[in-house]
Amino acid sequence: MASASSTFSLSQILLPRSIPNQNTSTSSSARISFISSLKNSHSTGTAITTKRLGSRPTITVKATAVDTIEKADTSLVEKSVNTIRFLAIDAVEKANSGHPGLPMGCAPMGHILYDEVMRYNPKNPYWFNRDRFVLSAGHGCMLQYALLHLAGYDSVKDEDLKSFRQWGSRTPGHPENFETPGIEVTTGPLGQGIANAVGLALAEKHLAARYNKPDIEIVDHYTYVILGDGCQMEGISNEACSLAGHWGLGKLIAFYDDNHISIDGDTNIAFTESVDTRFEGLGWHVIWVKNGNTGYDEIRAAIKEAKAVKDKPTLIKVTTTIGYGSPNKANSYSVHGSALGAKEVDATRRNLGWPYEPFHVPEEVKSHWSRHVPEGAALEAEWNTKFAEYKKKYKEEAAELNSISTGELPAGWEKALPTYTPESAADATRNLSQQCLNALANVLPGLIGGSADLASSNMTLLKSFGDFQKDTPEERNVRFGVREHGMGAICNGIALHSPGLFPYCATFFVFTDYMRAAIRISALCEAGVIYVMTHDSIGLGEDGPTHQPIEHLASFRAMPNILMLRPADGNETAGAYKVAILNRKRPSILALSRQKLPQLPGTSIEGVEKGGYTISDNSSGNKPDVILIGTGSELEIAAKAGDELRKEGKTVRVVSFVSWELFDEQSDAYKESILPAAVTARVSIEAGSTFGWGKIIGSEGKAIGIDQFGASAPAGRIYKEFGITVEAVIEAAKALF
Amino acid sequence: MASASSTFSLSQILLPRSIPNQNTSTSSSARISFISSLKNSHSTGTAITTKRLGSRPTITVKATAVDTIEKADTSLVEKSVNTIRFLAIDAVEKANSGHPGLPMGCAPMGHILYDEVMRYNPKNPYWFNRDRFVLSAGHGCMLQYALLHLAGYDSVKDEDLKSFRQWGSRTPGHPENFETPGIEVTTGPLGQGIANAVGLALAEKHLAARYNKPDIEIVDHYTYVILGDGCQMEGISNEACSLAGHWGLGKLIAFYDDNHISIDGDTNIAFTESVDTRFEGLGWHVIWVKNGNTGYDEIRAAIKEAKAVKDKPTLIKVTTTIGYGSPNKANSYSVHGSALGAKEVDATRRNLGWPYEPFHVPEEVKSHWSRHVPEGAALEAEWNTKFAEYKKKYKEEAAELNSISTGELPAGWEKALPTYTPESAADATRNLSQQCLNALANVLPGLIGGSADLASSNMTLLKSFGDFQKDTPEERNVRFGVREHGMGAICNGIALHSPGLFPYCATFFVFTDYMRAAIRISALCEAGVIYVMTHDSIGLGEDGPTHQPIEHLASFRAMPNILMLRPADGNETAGAYKVAILNRKRPSILALSRQKLPQLPGTSIEGVEKGGYTISDNSSGNKPDVILIGTGSELEIAAKAGDELRKEGKTVRVVSFVSWELFDEQSDAYKESILPAAVTARVSIEAGSTFGWGKIIGSEGKAIGIDQFGASAPAGRIYKEFGITVEAVIEAAKALF
Repeated sequence: MASASSTFSLSQILLPRSIPNQNTSTSSSARISFISSLKNSHSTGTAITTKRLGSRPTITVKATAVDTIEKADTSLVEKSVNTIRFLAIDAVEKANSGHPGLPMGCAPMGHILYDEVMRYNPKNPYWFNRDRFVLSAGHGCMLQYALLHLAGYDSVKDEDLKSFRQWGSRTPGHPENFETPGIEVTTGPLGQGIANAVGLALAEKHLAARYNKPDIEIVDHYTYVILGDGCQMEGISNEACSLAGHWGLGKLIAFYDDNHISIDGDTNIAFTESVDTRFEGLGWHVIWVKNGNTGYDEIRAAIKEAKAVKDKPTLIKVTTTIGYGSPNKANSYSVHGSALGAKEVDATRRNLGWPYEPFHVPEEVKSHWSRHVPEGAALEAEWNTKFAEYKKKYKEEAAELNSISTGELPAGWEKALPTYTPESAADATRNLSQQCLNALANVLPGLIGGSADLASSNMTLLKSFGDFQKDTPEERNVRFGVREHGMGAICNGIALHSPGLFPYCATFFVFTDYMRAAIRISALCEAGVIYVMTHDSIGLGEDGPTHQPIEHLASFRAMPNILMLRPADGNETAGAYKVAILNRKRPSILALSRQKLPQLPGTSIEGVEKGGYTISDNSSGNKPDVILIGTGSELEIAAKAGDELRKEGKTVRVVSFVSWELFDEQSDAYKESILPAAVTARVSIEAGSTFGWGKIIGSEGKAIGIDQFGASAPAGRIYKEFGITVEAVIEAAKALF
Repeated sequence: MASASSTFSLSQILLPRSIPNQNTSTSSSARISFISSLKNSHSTGTAITTKRLGSRPTITVKATAVDTIEKADTSLVEKSVNTIRFLAIDAVEKANSGHPGLPMGCAPMGHILYDEVMRYNPKNPYWFNRDRFVLSAGHGCMLQYALLHLAGYDSVKDEDLKSFRQWGSRTPGHPENFETPGIEVTTGPLGQGIANAVGLALAEKHLAARYNKPDIEIVDHYTYVILGDGCQMEGISNEACSLAGHWGLGKLIAFYDDNHISIDGDTNIAFTESVDTRFEGLGWHVIWVKNGNTGYDEIRAAIKEAKAVKDKPTLIKVTTTIGYGSPNKANSYSVHGSALGAKEVDATRRNLGWPYEPFHVPEEVKSHWSRHVPEGAALEAEWNTKFAEYKKKYKEEAAELNSISTGELPAGWEKALPTYTPESAADATRNLSQQCLNALANVLPGLIGGSADLASSNMTLLKSFGDFQKDTPEERNVRFGVREHGMGAICNGIALHSPGLFPYCATFFVFTDYMRAAIRISALCEAGVIYVMTHDSIGLGEDGPTHQPIEHLASFRAMPNILMLRPADGNETAGAYKVAILNRKRPSILALSRQKLPQLPGTSIEGVEKGGYTISDNSSGNKPDVILIGTGSELEIAAKAGDELRKEGKTVRVVSFVSWELFDEQSDAYKESILPAAVTARVSIEAGSTFGWGKIIGSEGKAIGIDQFGASAPAGRIYKEFGITVEAVIEAAKALF
């Protein structure tokens, strides 16, 4: 820490001056704190505290000392800020592709966050108690790459900046957590990042409430976000921010880059709402920094004020100029998403007084930032010491927290999963799912989740726990309200907070359409979210075609890195959960029935792990007359048809095809043992689109399914009218003999 | 009109008393108008006007007269309201399925809207100038079915009420415009309806601005919505309502059924934001009716006030009791989505003093509502007369408006589509799309649309027109901002406003994930929206995997009633637009390239109309050595590979597979002429998931595609690294010879 303490005198100082709090006024506009003219506040003589220690000041410096420091400081800060700007400009220019505008405008807040405010360890980007930063406006990723580079992360070296947006580089066109250590989540699709951040802040609040002790605060970090006008317009951000306000996530601090420019031009053409008023309505504390381009002290003061508000998340609206510093392109959409061009880069260099070569980091900036490596190591070491003490005092909690922070599964956890025999009661797989969830919640401390206002239909309540709410954040049932998209993205944030958090979320399967963008990000960013999707077919009955999924199974089978599981009964539901828990780097979707299903002979957890397997067969020599393939609620139909055909003397294999992806991963020999090439008489049955089944059943086979929208009627009637019946399977099979 | 005028003395009366307008206050809460205690206002002696004529009063009645009338009136109104409640209760009870809670709480506002406020013709539900009503909280559909029944719509007869939620009935579990004339849009998936309503109101404002004349107001209707807590929580509603505020849609009046109950219980568990404040932020006028259960006058006054505010949409927050009247279930989630049960139905009958049999409509209620059939006919006749006059005076405008209101295409419109030869310049299909859009805008007066803040990337600007904005509503470029989901649902509303409106909307293809729920509703509700989806593959390059569609083509090919078109060049883009315009009852998605593509020999508009067709072939007897199949940007690769293989002496057919759905609809003979069963050597190439191609290429064929997420790099490099190359096609073909 010695090398670190010597730098406390530099820019890492926050003024604790009294920010006029106008919250007592009833006027709408007055409820927002304006921070815009604090120029003379240095000389007020107020004691100041170091920033690095957040709300627990330990070092007090006299203002007189600060005045001197601040002068040197400001010039150095400016140099650092311009370094960030030009690293972004130069990288975009070299790639001839990218978004220089946001980094140029947001460099001041970026600098203050990474250099003065955030606590992290560059050499261990996964340190559990680090502050989290999310660039929700992901197109501005060069801002974050520049910051990670200056802070000393190994993931963004000089050569990485120079290979921005190139094949195989660690600096892709949008921030990707799976490519670049130091990046927390994957952003770019607008609005996802702010919702991820709500998930990260939820995770912190939850774990802090469960594991902090009066004498040891073992979980304690902030979540910072930068989001832009685009994020603000997306519905997902309103959903997630409504929840953040409801939950009172006081350690979530979002910077809204209010630059009045989006791709199509001035935001006036499509975005004239009052964001401030909306966020007040959502229960946030709102601060406006009027000069985000050079108002360093205003930004610092806003952060301080935000930290002081502990029961609400804070939106700091920072008015900036997109492309700040570019004499001819600043404040226009042309600087948003294209390289400036050599001429304008030169003009910007002249304008900002930047005589350096491309990618140059001035020595004093390098030296200034160099403290973050030792400081970060010290922060982590300090925390490790604390955790060692915690372990001694709170053995059980420490074991749980260790499991959550490392992702190491408790030994024998899978024994908690229920198993069933054909004699077990028939039940809907949504109910069987609830049995699994409740069993797992007892052995997996990191299992947390809920439904988008359908808990009693999705059957997702954990019976031993209460609701995660503002005043009961230690509980594990999350009430997402009717906000599917926000729910998915929040779960991505929870999953990426700690490898041992297992977020699950639920709605009707058809409403995956509302959250598909978040589900795709789960798959891309390797977030092992468990999607509990009930009412998975026309079997839901009377609610009709708006509520009946048809193409959804196919649409997810086509998506990379996701497991689409459709269990048929209790054993398969348990198997689906086992697979979901074990797959930490890919999300799982469980399609579950509303209607009661029998416990079928032959189903097993092990079978599910192989994706496709035989549940009954009266053939020998791997040569059945016909193979009947079913999934989920239609496996029963396939099994019944098999029984009938066997009565007629046929040899029939009945195969459960619960997960195409897992089957694809099996050996050729295994696949041949289930679907021998020589047996082309194959019939599939599934109450959904037949799209894609051609590959499984081959050119000769017959796929029974539904290639039209559903209908409103009792489920049995719809099955019959749509031909999803035992008779149809028998008829199709007979046509193939 | 004689029979109608005799009823003016009944409940159809609005008091024009001065509603205290508190908008001058700066206080946030005071900005909302509270309407809750108007009991004594009858006796103020203010003149009152008939409601049916909206803001154009023609009949004035003395208050003294009204006092008498109102007494009779209120009891009749109550009877009518209870009729609505019990029709809903009885239908749900008979079906033993459905949602009685909302109709019971919203019956008063429903009654006032359909009986006192709205202008419609029950015998012609498609009358152009009717007021539109949208039940965004679609689960409460029995409310609307009861209202349509009372109003005299032929679509909801007594037997339809009794077959609620049964196979083949016209009263499905959620409102479906394609099943039930009188239903404007398809709702159920929450938030869609309010966004549809924004589209309906946009259409009205746009057409009014274009076609109304100082002497003849030919377009003039309101759009009314009822939405609930669920709709309010969904991000889509915030997106659409932000736009409605931005556009100043003064004739959009939304009733927010504020009943504090959602499926999981009290909204306090997940929804504690201030909706009022949020809507103020969105630029709406907000009114609060505190007693929605019996406060008829308050509801009437709120509507009057809403109509007086002409430059803003109005949200009328109506506090109601879900399941009002049920002594044991009101105000609880148990009344939301299940039948009350025989015992509670009896208790409710006793409680509300309802001695009638199930489904009974008392004679006086029947008689009261009976005027709507003649009145509606008169309203339409009056409008027809006006339109006849308009036609005489404004021939050209009348022809355009006629085309818009009937959907009749102008003769020869398709000649406007551009055609290309192989010598035409290479170009991105997104640019070619813009040529088509601009050509069509000149011949199709109903073409209107835009992009979700990517107009300059999606190439969707109509060059001869300005922006549709609050003060320029006659223009045809719509600026949706970054609100894909709202955009899609708004376009559904526009499409369903008039058969001759052709809404198009645009974003990057990958972001269909954000709007998938709206696109599915387009397909289900037969709204011929044109989705202009550019940057349709890894060909977009550096933006990387968050922006590169992979599974999207497959995911839409699996969706019923939608056309997924991926044109390869200029002729195919023109063909795709021809198909899209001609398919008024199913939406079209055009997947378009960011990158330049050559104009290929052999492509044609006619070919596109068949979905799949041969662009080149050197074989004879329908027996090529191999068939190479490509779509979009990969058709060029297939064509080049074909050329190479032919140089080596092979006979090769190159097929463009631009739309799987259209190909599926061709005759077997045609299909055999393109993909002869005997030729199993087939290679497909498409820069997307291979999922589903098995059906086209058969068990022997080879599908070249991408079954993983993309990458950030220049496009050429990604194509090479992912093996989407001429060489790969040649190699695959050779393996099949």
